Amino acid sequence: MKRLLLCLLAAGPLLLNAAAPAPAPMHKPYGLVIHGGAGVIRREELPPALEAEYRAQLAAALAAGYAVLDGGGSALDAVVAAIRVLEDSPLFNAGKGAVLNAAGVCELDAAIMDGRTLAAGAVAGVRHIRNPIRLARDVMERSGHVLVVGDGAEVFARKLGYTLEDESYFQTDVRRRQLERARQLETTGQPAAALPAGTLGRGVTGDEYRVNEFKFGTVGCVALDQAGNLAAGTSTGGMTNKRYGRVGDSPIIGAGTYASNGTCAVSATGYGEYFIRTVVGHDIAAQMEYRGASLAEAAAATLAKVARLGGTGGVIAIDRAGHIALPFNTAGMYRGHHLAGGEAVVEIFQ
Amino acid sequence: MKRLLLCLLAAGPLLLNAAAPAPAPMHKPYGLVIHGGAGVIRREELPPALEAEYRAQLAAALAAGYAVLDGGGSALDAVVAAIRVLEDSPLFNAGKGAVLNAAGVCELDAAIMDGRTLAAGAVAGVRHIRNPIRLARDVMERSGHVLVVGDGAEVFARKLGYTLEDESYFQTDVRRRQLERARQLETTGQPAAALPAGTLGRGVTGDEYRVNEFKFGTVGCVALDQAGNLAAGTSTGGMTNKRYGRVGDSPIIGAGTYASNGTCAVSATGYGEYFIRTVVGHDIAAQMEYRGASLAEAAAATLAKVARLGGTGGVIAIDRAGHIALPFNTAGMYRGHHLAGGEAVVEIFQ
Repeated sequence: MKRLLLCLLAAGPLLLNAAAPAPAPMHKPYGLVIHGGAGVIRREELPPALEAEYRAQLAAALAAGYAVLDGGGSALDAVVAAIRVLEDSPLFNAGKGAVLNAAGVCELDAAIMDGRTLAAGAVAGVRHIRNPIRLARDVMERSGHVLVVGDGAEVFARKLGYTLEDESYFQTDVRRRQLERARQLETTGQPAAALPAGTLGRGVTGDEYRVNEFKFGTVGCVALDQAGNLAAGTSTGGMTNKRYGRVGDSPIIGAGTYASNGTCAVSATGYGEYFIRTVVGHDIAAQMEYRGASLAEAAAATLAKVARLGGTGGVIAIDRAGHIALPFNTAGMYRGHHLAGGEAVVEIFQ
Repeated sequence: MKRLLLCLLAAGPLLLNAAAPAPAPMHKPYGLVIHGGAGVIRREELPPALEAEYRAQLAAALAAGYAVLDGGGSALDAVVAAIRVLEDSPLFNAGKGAVLNAAGVCELDAAIMDGRTLAAGAVAGVRHIRNPIRLARDVMERSGHVLVVGDGAEVFARKLGYTLEDESYFQTDVRRRQLERARQLETTGQPAAALPAGTLGRGVTGDEYRVNEFKFGTVGCVALDQAGNLAAGTSTGGMTNKRYGRVGDSPIIGAGTYASNGTCAVSATGYGEYFIRTVVGHDIAAQMEYRGASLAEAAAATLAKVARLGGTGGVIAIDRAGHIALPFNTAGMYRGHHLAGGEAVVEIFQ
């Protein structure tokens, strides 16, 4: 089992067309994979103290999700448990610490999908919900709808007794400086999307790094429980300086979030527009269903499609046999996994 | 050519697994398919005068789109031209005459996708845009984003010089009565989603019919142009009495709207939540790409998946060879098609 993981992970972003799929682990596989965003994350630029913070938070999220699965809980519960830790941490672009939109506020999107029933729930453009992943699950289980957006989603939350947070809860100084920098670049003629990053070199401070770092972080989790059910969830603040009520791929079922027991569970992170156009989550599942691809082959092929359009990012995926894949085509992706019989593993760079 | 169409159409909602796909038409096929919503639409209940109105509007939309294609215009232009006619007609649940949400106003969603580049644009929850399909196209071509929602989408529209319509422009008496009826059913304990319909019998008035009719109309168009490019578009007001900023499948790329030159263009109409969960548009395309299914086989198999979850509705689809499919699992679907070398055909019932 450990060898399987090492083999899959060693391939990293180059996880392409392994000739023979690795054998499935024996007896009741279960476990989870998480991500905390992909982007220009380079070892030589990430200050050691900040790297330690990221690793600790990823480990905490992994532990929260794994504890659910190890205790016989559901994949859905594990996904929510892991993502809540990342939403509550100011380090990631979800919940507290999300990026600011052009108006200077956090607009949050999240989705969850149950591979057993294909039930799904998602929210987009919410501004006062501490844990959007929790609201996405309530949309799935209690609204009769799949996707609810904006103020309406918060009306629903209030009806369920949610406490609405003040907008200031989500905002951090780091993200404010990130927005200022994006605005500056824009007024000098460069579009926000072209924000250069990863060119700081050694010796930068944590703050400089964070202001300059990845422009499309997102958090997500995919899980397989002891009953053999799959689930996927994703939560994000989208893009710094975004406008016009822009919604990315995270809350789009089939794109940033997808799960079906028949194939796999997927959560994506990257330049959302490209991931929507490629219908990333469902494209990975469809290759497994319709052409018999392995999880690793399918994930790599779909990410190659994204790249051909010009998109960058990564995905995490798990199938019913407990195979996992974590391909990405950026310099780094905050990520971790813990499968039954193995150790918790946290990684950042290629 | 005509025989091909008749053969496909005769199969209607039972268009399942034809053993051998029909041969593709010869030389530069082009044409389009439109729909105006699927649901409980029965011949014995639709008053003749109202049926004639529906047929005339569908024919007008078809003619508008076909004229573009016949003149050498693009599939994208044809899709917009056809859908604008249906949005402007009060008969269909899109643009003017859209259903009312729980607050008594029209909230409109639309999407468009270019099969040549996989570019896509969509809007959701707009309230003042006369032709949401036009704004979806501007999102695709001018916003840098794929999906924009709510007020933000209208800020973008204003920036482009759109006239914002008063909410009253969209509202019709028929839809007000439909909302009243939905509210009544709800207060008597029946959820709006369970609104019975199609049980009126002969001799009903046009108004009674319209108030009672399909709860999930939507309009859409798929087209193939002379250059061999595919495009798809969809526009809708969603569900009567909808709440919480609910968004259905229409503006979700991969679900209600999808186009790729490599496979097909698809627009769906039906109970949106089931169509999102099944990722309908991309599932049809994926079967063609990954298991070599014909368009008709793929469309029928995907609609069967929707039905297994409990969902009803239909899809229209066209591939690069000019094959078309229009399966639905409801009593009727407002629809039409016009392929080069053939006649314009408008149909409503099974």
